[in-house]
Amino acid sequence: MTVTMEIICIGNELLIGKVVNTNASWMGKRATALGVLVRRVTEGPDEISEIVSVVREAIARKPHFIVTSGGLGPTFDDMTLEGLAKALNRGLAVDEAALAMVKVKYKEYSKARNIPEGEMTPPRVKMATLPKGAQAILNPVGTAPGVRIDVGGTVLIALPGVPSEMEAIFEASVAPLLREAAGNLGFYEMSIYADSIMESVLAPLIDKVMHDNTGVYIKSHPKGRENRPHMELHLSTTGKPTEIPEERLRKASVELAGLIAKAGGELVKAETMTP
Amino acid sequence: MTVTMEIICIGNELLIGKVVNTNASWMGKRATALGVLVRRVTEGPDEISEIVSVVREAIARKPHFIVTSGGLGPTFDDMTLEGLAKALNRGLAVDEAALAMVKVKYKEYSKARNIPEGEMTPPRVKMATLPKGAQAILNPVGTAPGVRIDVGGTVLIALPGVPSEMEAIFEASVAPLLREAAGNLGFYEMSIYADSIMESVLAPLIDKVMHDNTGVYIKSHPKGRENRPHMELHLSTTGKPTEIPEERLRKASVELAGLIAKAGGELVKAETMTP
Repeated sequence: MTVTMEIICIGNELLIGKVVNTNASWMGKRATALGVLVRRVTEGPDEISEIVSVVREAIARKPHFIVTSGGLGPTFDDMTLEGLAKALNRGLAVDEAALAMVKVKYKEYSKARNIPEGEMTPPRVKMATLPKGAQAILNPVGTAPGVRIDVGGTVLIALPGVPSEMEAIFEASVAPLLREAAGNLGFYEMSIYADSIMESVLAPLIDKVMHDNTGVYIKSHPKGRENRPHMELHLSTTGKPTEIPEERLRKASVELAGLIAKAGGELVKAETMTP
Repeated sequence: MTVTMEIICIGNELLIGKVVNTNASWMGKRATALGVLVRRVTEGPDEISEIVSVVREAIARKPHFIVTSGGLGPTFDDMTLEGLAKALNRGLAVDEAALAMVKVKYKEYSKARNIPEGEMTPPRVKMATLPKGAQAILNPVGTAPGVRIDVGGTVLIALPGVPSEMEAIFEASVAPLLREAAGNLGFYEMSIYADSIMESVLAPLIDKVMHDNTGVYIKSHPKGRENRPHMELHLSTTGKPTEIPEERLRKASVELAGLIAKAGGELVKAETMTP
């Protein structure tokens, strides 16, 4: 069974291009390496009604996992928890475990900076106000806890948008879930680079090699121009280590390299990325 | 009337995190600067059925513009034109204008590299095989033409995924459409940076300043940690130059700076980005 995942990133800063969405590519890379198939990435604005739509649409596609980033902080425009509650027709309630996590953080901060601890103001309590039935997930490096909600066969996990916090929670609490669900698969990839061969000439060669090598996916990435072609051929496959997926890649790459040479292309480099 | 746009980026390399989606942020920034509101970004895989879903869902939301990038090239996994045709229940046909554009490019390449021009093989003809009723758009720097299709009140434009080609077609043929549709609006933004103030303390101050300054949107971006807070406050507004939107931003930023200082924060920097 292929384990599937969707990524949802909330934040106006993504849509206006102020911030490049490295959270999506980071999560996509990690999930892929763990053997999970990422099916879609969606970016939406800081608006309740849009968050509700984006989340409902993703749930309707029934992926095994949905991971969101952004919108868990204390400000008015952090709306992901309210959006999730509305999307699922659930109420919001202060979660005692989440509240304890947030309190501990402010206690730490006040000690570290030698300032008064301050009250649990509404913006602080907001970070612990979760959709009913949700579980808080420890944030090892920041304030806002992550949140897990099980919806039918889908595990929905909400992470903060600050990259260091998202990554820390992902590694500690999301990666193990994905690895286990995917049955300890790995993603294997290598690239070969060729000069002096146009993508339009490569196209049928790629077709042939993919046909001859079941399970190997090949995609060409033009790096130069069709005019002065420099091409990356990216080969990838997913499998258990015992199935020796590296051998599948090696075989396919040798066949492809031979066809490229025969068509007048020059092989300039090969690169293996181990999982 | 607010002119809306959605961005769709097609490519497995985005979903597996091999490539960071700078096309989406580049287009988002340009569209925003032209006064257009980007409502959603979607990334989908190189699969016909998924492209059909992504495109149909975007059309159903009735934005004024949909701009796609990726999947226009000559290889088997360049599927955007086939996906668009299926999504719109239209057939595909070789477009004479597009074919002429592609032919000219290969003529140029063969001259520049002093190699035979080569035949118009199926992979080359593929780039000129458009959904019926579509118009080809000149690609000033690469081979695959852009494509425009009008669907009800939505203008759908498909651009190549290679950033230099996407950007060149966007500037030449998409930006003027957006500018005119938006009524020559501009997007104005500035940032102020503050130390020693936590996001949870800032939250109510931002609320107040947004309430006092209609049309100004403020978003806090934590750059340090809640522990050692360094905060970017991003202020933005959209308007015609004659409405002096800069003055709106200036007024709001002065009020915000005063409130931050009163709450014990230190203002460290201010930055204006002119449109």
